[in-house]
Formats: sequence, C-alpha cells, structure tokens
Amino acid sequence: MTSGRTIRIGLLGCGTVGTSFVQLIDQQRSAIAARTGLDIIVAAVSVRDLSRTRDGVDPSLLTTDSAAIVADPTIDVIVETMGGVDGTKQLLETALAAGKPVITANKELLAHHGPELFAAASAAGVDLSFEASVAAGIPFIRPLRESLVGENITRVMGILNGTTNYILSQMTEHGAGYADALEEAQRLGFAEADPTADVEGFDAGAKAAIIATLAFGQSVTAGDVHIEGISTITAEDISNADRMGHVIKLLGVVDRDDTGAIGVRVHPAMVSADHPLASVRDSFNAVFVEGDGVDQLMFYGRGAGGHPTAAMMVGDTIDAALNVVAGVHRDLGALQPAAIKPMSEVVSAFYVSLDARDEPGALATIAAAFGNRGVSIRSMEQEGLGDQARLVFITHEAVEADLRATLTDLNGIDVVKNVGQVLRVVCD
Amino acid sequence: MTSGRTIRIGLLGCGTVGTSFVQLIDQQRSAIAARTGLDIIVAAVSVRDLSRTRDGVDPSLLTTDSAAIVADPTIDVIVETMGGVDGTKQLLETALAAGKPVITANKELLAHHGPELFAAASAAGVDLSFEASVAAGIPFIRPLRESLVGENITRVMGILNGTTNYILSQMTEHGAGYADALEEAQRLGFAEADPTADVEGFDAGAKAAIIATLAFGQSVTAGDVHIEGISTITAEDISNADRMGHVIKLLGVVDRDDTGAIGVRVHPAMVSADHPLASVRDSFNAVFVEGDGVDQLMFYGRGAGGHPTAAMMVGDTIDAALNVVAGVHRDLGALQPAAIKPMSEVVSAFYVSLDARDEPGALATIAAAFGNRGVSIRSMEQEGLGDQARLVFITHEAVEADLRATLTDLNGIDVVKNVGQVLRVVCD
Repeated sequence: MTSGRTIRIGLLGCGTVGTSFVQLIDQQRSAIAARTGLDIIVAAVSVRDLSRTRDGVDPSLLTTDSAAIVADPTIDVIVETMGGVDGTKQLLETALAAGKPVITANKELLAHHGPELFAAASAAGVDLSFEASVAAGIPFIRPLRESLVGENITRVMGILNGTTNYILSQMTEHGAGYADALEEAQRLGFAEADPTADVEGFDAGAKAAIIATLAFGQSVTAGDVHIEGISTITAEDISNADRMGHVIKLLGVVDRDDTGAIGVRVHPAMVSADHPLASVRDSFNAVFVEGDGVDQLMFYGRGAGGHPTAAMMVGDTIDAALNVVAGVHRDLGALQPAAIKPMSEVVSAFYVSLDARDEPGALATIAAAFGNRGVSIRSMEQEGLGDQARLVFITHEAVEADLRATLTDLNGIDVVKNVGQVLRVVCD
Repeated sequence: MTSGRTIRIGLLGCGTVGTSFVQLIDQQRSAIAARTGLDIIVAAVSVRDLSRTRDGVDPSLLTTDSAAIVADPTIDVIVETMGGVDGTKQLLETALAAGKPVITANKELLAHHGPELFAAASAAGVDLSFEASVAAGIPFIRPLRESLVGENITRVMGILNGTTNYILSQMTEHGAGYADALEEAQRLGFAEADPTADVEGFDAGAKAAIIATLAFGQSVTAGDVHIEGISTITAEDISNADRMGHVIKLLGVVDRDDTGAIGVRVHPAMVSADHPLASVRDSFNAVFVEGDGVDQLMFYGRGAGGHPTAAMMVGDTIDAALNVVAGVHRDLGALQPAAIKPMSEVVSAFYVSLDARDEPGALATIAAAFGNRGVSIRSMEQEGLGDQARLVFITHEAVEADLRATLTDLNGIDVVKNVGQVLRVVCD
C-alpha cells in the first residue's frame, strides 16, 4: 500500500470515452484511494471545441493545447482518447520520452505504429497501456501479457467488432437480410453512416494485429492482416449454417504453426452452435484463446461504449500510477517482425455452396474436382431438385490455395452452373 | 526489461498440478527468458513420497522437508501445490515473513484464512498470488484486482465447480437423472468417490468467499457463505426449466446492495438459455461480472486440471519474480470484515412447483397465498389434469423470507398436496 500521493492525469481528447473517464475517476476517487493509497485526479483536458459542455467535466480544466499538457511537468500520466494516428503518435512519443506513462485505446495507432511505440516506452522505461484498444470493455490484454506470459498460445479467435456481430445476430435471430440488418444497426446507432470500416473488417483487422503482437511477442501490423468482411453474407447462408448446426460470425483469427509462422486474418466463419463463441450475441465481443497449458479460455464483454472503454482505461491508469510511485514499469521490449504466413498456405475447413445441373454423374464429377486438388469432403447436402438443385459441401481441413484451385476448377465444369458462397468453418 | 537474473523457485507439493508446473516452467524457460530477461528455475521440490516417479521432475530436487525449502535463503519464490490448511498456513506465513512471495491455488486455505495471509503479505511487503485458486485455469483474479480496481462491481455470478457443471450438463443434454449423471462423472474421473464437497456446494462456496473478498475489498470467509447443492435436482426440474427456456446451473453469487451489505451464496439456479452462463457446458467454469462501468463481462475456461492450473501459477510466478527483481509488490492490505446480508433478506425471483387438487377456486387460493406475502407471480403453467395436476410458478423478484413464508403457508392449504422443487431464477 502506497501512501497519500496525488497523481495528476492529463487527458487528451474528451468525447464519449474521455467524458466517461473523467466521470469514473471522479466517482471512484475515494474507493481508489482506499484501495491504493493514491489520490488520482484529472488535472487537464485537451479538446477541439472549448464551448461544448461535457457532463461532469470541470470547464476550467479544458484547453485546446494537447502539446502543453504533454509538456507540463506537473502531469504524471497521459490518457489519450482523442484518436488519430500521426499527430497523436508524435504527442505520445513526446510524453513517453518525458517519462510519462501513456494509456491509450487507439487501435489504429497501435495497429500501424505499435512496435515503434512499444520500443519508445521500453527505451524511456515507462508504461504504455492499452487494455481498451481491443474488445474495449473486456480486460483481456492484461491477462494475455501477464497471466499468460509463460503460456504457449496456439490460436486466438475473436469477435472483435460489435457492429458486425449485431448485424449477424439480427440476421440469425430474426431472419433479416444483410441490408435490412445494417439499416437497423444504423438506426440504433450501432453502425455508422459509412459502415465500411466495420462491415469490411478493417476495424477487426487492426485489433487482430494487436492480438497477434501480444499473443506471439512479435511485431504484427495492420498491413499483415488478410481481411474479408460480411457484406456478401446472405440470409440463405445464415439459414444453411443454422440447418447444419452452425452460426456465422465475423472472426479475427491469429495462429502460429510449428515453424513459427504467424497467420493473422479476419473473415466470416461458420462456428458450431455449441462453441462458446456462438453464444456471443448482439453487440458483445469475445476473445477465445487456445494454449498448451490453459486449453481453452474465453473473455466476453462490451466491445465498445464510453463507460466500458473508460473503465478499462481507469484500470490501466491506476496500474500506471502505482508503477510511477514504485518506480517500475512493464514493457514488451523491442519486438522482432513476425514471419507472416501467406493466406494461400493457411489451413481451414470450408463451406462451399454451388448450383449444379441435375444430371447423372454430376455429383461424381464435382466430387472428383475436390479430390483432384487433395480437398477431402466431410459432408454434402442437396437442396431442391432438377435444375434448381443446390449442393452444399463442408470439407475437411484443406490448404487455402488448394481450395481456391478447386473453386477455379469447379467453375470450369459443365455441370456446375455457379459457385456460390464459400466460407471457412471453425474446427475445434 | 530486466536482465539475466536467475529466480529460484521452491515448490511445495508435487502432485498433478505441481508436476505440470515443473513441466511448464521447463518447457517455457527460454520463452520466459526472452520476454522477461529472467531465468526462472525450479530449485527444490517437497513431496511426501520420495520414491514415486514424477514425469519431468529431476529426482535430485526432491525433499520431504517443506520447512527447509521455506527457510532456504537461496529460494526466491514459494509455489504451494500441497494443499492442506493449518500446517500449510504456517509454512506460507513463514515464507512471507522471510520476504518470499507466495503463489498458491489453495482455495480452502484462502477461504478460511485469506485475510490473515493477505495481511501477512502486506506487512512483509511481498506478493501473495492466487490466480489458480478460483476457476483454476481462468485468468480472472488479476483482471479483477488490477483492470477492475477502479470499477464499482455490483454482482459476480460464477459456475465455479466443474464436477457439478458436468453432472448438470449431462442431465440437460441427455436427460439423465442425477444419480446416473453422478455415477458417469465418477466413472470418468470428474467426480470423486465421495462427491460431497462438489455436489453439496462446499468447493464452490470457498471460491465464492474469495471472489467476494476481491470484488468488494472486504474480508469474506467460507463461513459467511450460504450453501445449497445440486443433489435434489431432478430430471423433471431440468425438463421444466428447458420448457421455460432455462437451464439449471450451480451458481456462486456475490452481490452488494446500496447499503454496502454483501450477499454471498451458492445454490442451483435457473438461468435463461440465452444468458452467456447457459452456454458453459461440461466441466468448464465461468465467472460473470456486472459493474457500473463495464456492464457485463464473462471469463470462461478450465476450472481444474493439472495443466490449466499450473499455467496460471506460472503466470503468477513470473509476475512475482519480476516484482522481486524490481523490489515492488501489490497487496490487498488489511481488509475490514464485510457486513454479510442474511440469506433471509436476499432478493431473487423463484421457480416453485407444487401438486394441487384440481378443484374450483384452487388456483385463486394458491395465488392468494403468494399475494398475502407480497410475492408477485410472473408466470404460471399447469401440467397434467385432475389429481395429477402440477403447477409451476415463476415469481417476480421477492425477498427470501417472504418466499419462505409463502411456502409454509402453501403447505398449510388444503388444495396443495405437496410443495415440490423451489429454485432461484437469475434475472438480468
């Protein structure tokens, strides 16, 4: 128990998360003091618009000058909720170099420049904490960095984007089509007017890069991530999945094979209905971790929102404050770039639907196309009859390049009218 | 990043968990060194039987003298996997007083003497870490202590015992009766020959006491916990729950009301099928946390087993080792005893089944018995006809004492032949 020191926070940015942060620090001030012996206060807040009122934020703390807060020698810890990449990076590097721990939830910044910032924190000997940057309200980074630091993690799969999980949940539970579910999500404020970053997987991709960096202790950045979104998922795909005992989720997947090569990708996938990830509904997020020692773990909670995000930043802030007082820090050190496995070499089971002519020998011809590429079929279902026949295949695990070659071959076969949806299937 | 120091661990006890711990430390030695700069080795191991072979454990490290390991000045950290309460407490207090951090998974010890041990660690200025003591393989204590240190936690509900969750899962998924499911669990090694500690809720109760202590920062011990087990749950209860869209789980529940009074209890409960806890099957454990900032969180994973338990102890060990090198520690300080809310004052919704005569006015009489005690009925179903009629009620939230009084009244009513199962129902 440390005693009686005041820790002065400089808050950069005061939107939804920043305002919640100020409110939580204020509400919990005496409880935090009782538990840690520290009086943690927000001493300065930088904003773009001084005239906006922010509930619970003392206007006398506001300034438009973020750089002045970073340079202020009376500020002990910097909490960044302003977003942005290049300018923000410079501010945070200046703070770290001045010996100020930094708390951030800025996934774009970390996914693009994380390794540089980790190295800067390590060189300065101060904390760079980012619990809220992935699956915002779920305390998952600290366990990964600390409780699992001695664990050989083999795979992490995450539902990392609340908007897409909300859309897919609506499609699954109410039979809605993609466009209707997206519109509903926009109406309720779960999706933005331009939903591209969410529905095309870019948001989840940035988070997957951060997870891969932490899980494997090597530098993985946003550009390393293979990304596919959910805009091609149809109500028919959802109902096919349901009939086969699966749900469709947008997953961020990071894994490492025996050679040490790291796979990192975001794509929709069919998940067995009795898998814990299948029960993650609405806008909730979850991170499912597999490792040699721990077997399976899942962390579930709010992936966004002012209060949940701010709650994690408060935890990081208290930790950083205690470390400041103790004169210690934890860092990731200088990370080596990861060897990224090309998507063509990734192994997965697949769901393939196709329209075929109902002719004698058609199925044998189609099955041979899979077999010729070494792709083994686990199950097949036919829906409809005659020229309306649609075939749905689930394969055993296959190399991505072999499956892609199979699809090309299938498109060239006369009895195949059309290759439809292709989705990866998560295997235990 | 610290540099090149060797940390020597003294391991007390070398059963399944201890052996896994030695194996994991050995396997991960170079990875741990790469990440932390520390060379962590197991330097001494105390056992009861020197002659038993333990896979991967160097026999030259073995001794039967735990006290000698604790007293050895070359030992930096004590890891306890021997179990036991009084003798073990003395050993660990000696270790703490000598400035050695202690890692333990001993829930009985912590549930009975945790506050004394926390105070001893605080006085000595060293770490006492126990991630594996509750929901063994799930990193949940560190997030609760650190990420959520500034959070106002309102309720924690846990599936804290793998044996009972396995039994209830078998009953739910295969329609098995309690006795058959228990026998199967015993055959597979999920339940012990004397299953009392598991099926009557004592194991979960010890864990609930630890959770309450951490969640609310006050001293709660095993004797504070109200405990009911699962041995009265029937196949009919399970199928009634299923028909009403619920599953039955054995839950440890801790909560705090506006007056600061803490409720802590273990009992079977009906959980809505779409609640995340409902998807926790087989011998998995989970801890579901509700708080003002984070809304809802769930931590899911293995609640037992050598490897998962040892993996968490390795994480604690690395953390303690880093703190030894840095000369810092984290502690819970001196905890004040909690004000425990009497069970009679706890508020819950209830499921009540009863056999009634099929007479005109019977339902009105029965409904009046609920109403007279201020217990409001949310739903009622009748199964069967005539003298075989069974009524199933779900109440709105009611005070436990009022519900108990209602049951007494019901037993005295002529049209009620028999009051059957009574279960609490979890509300969001």
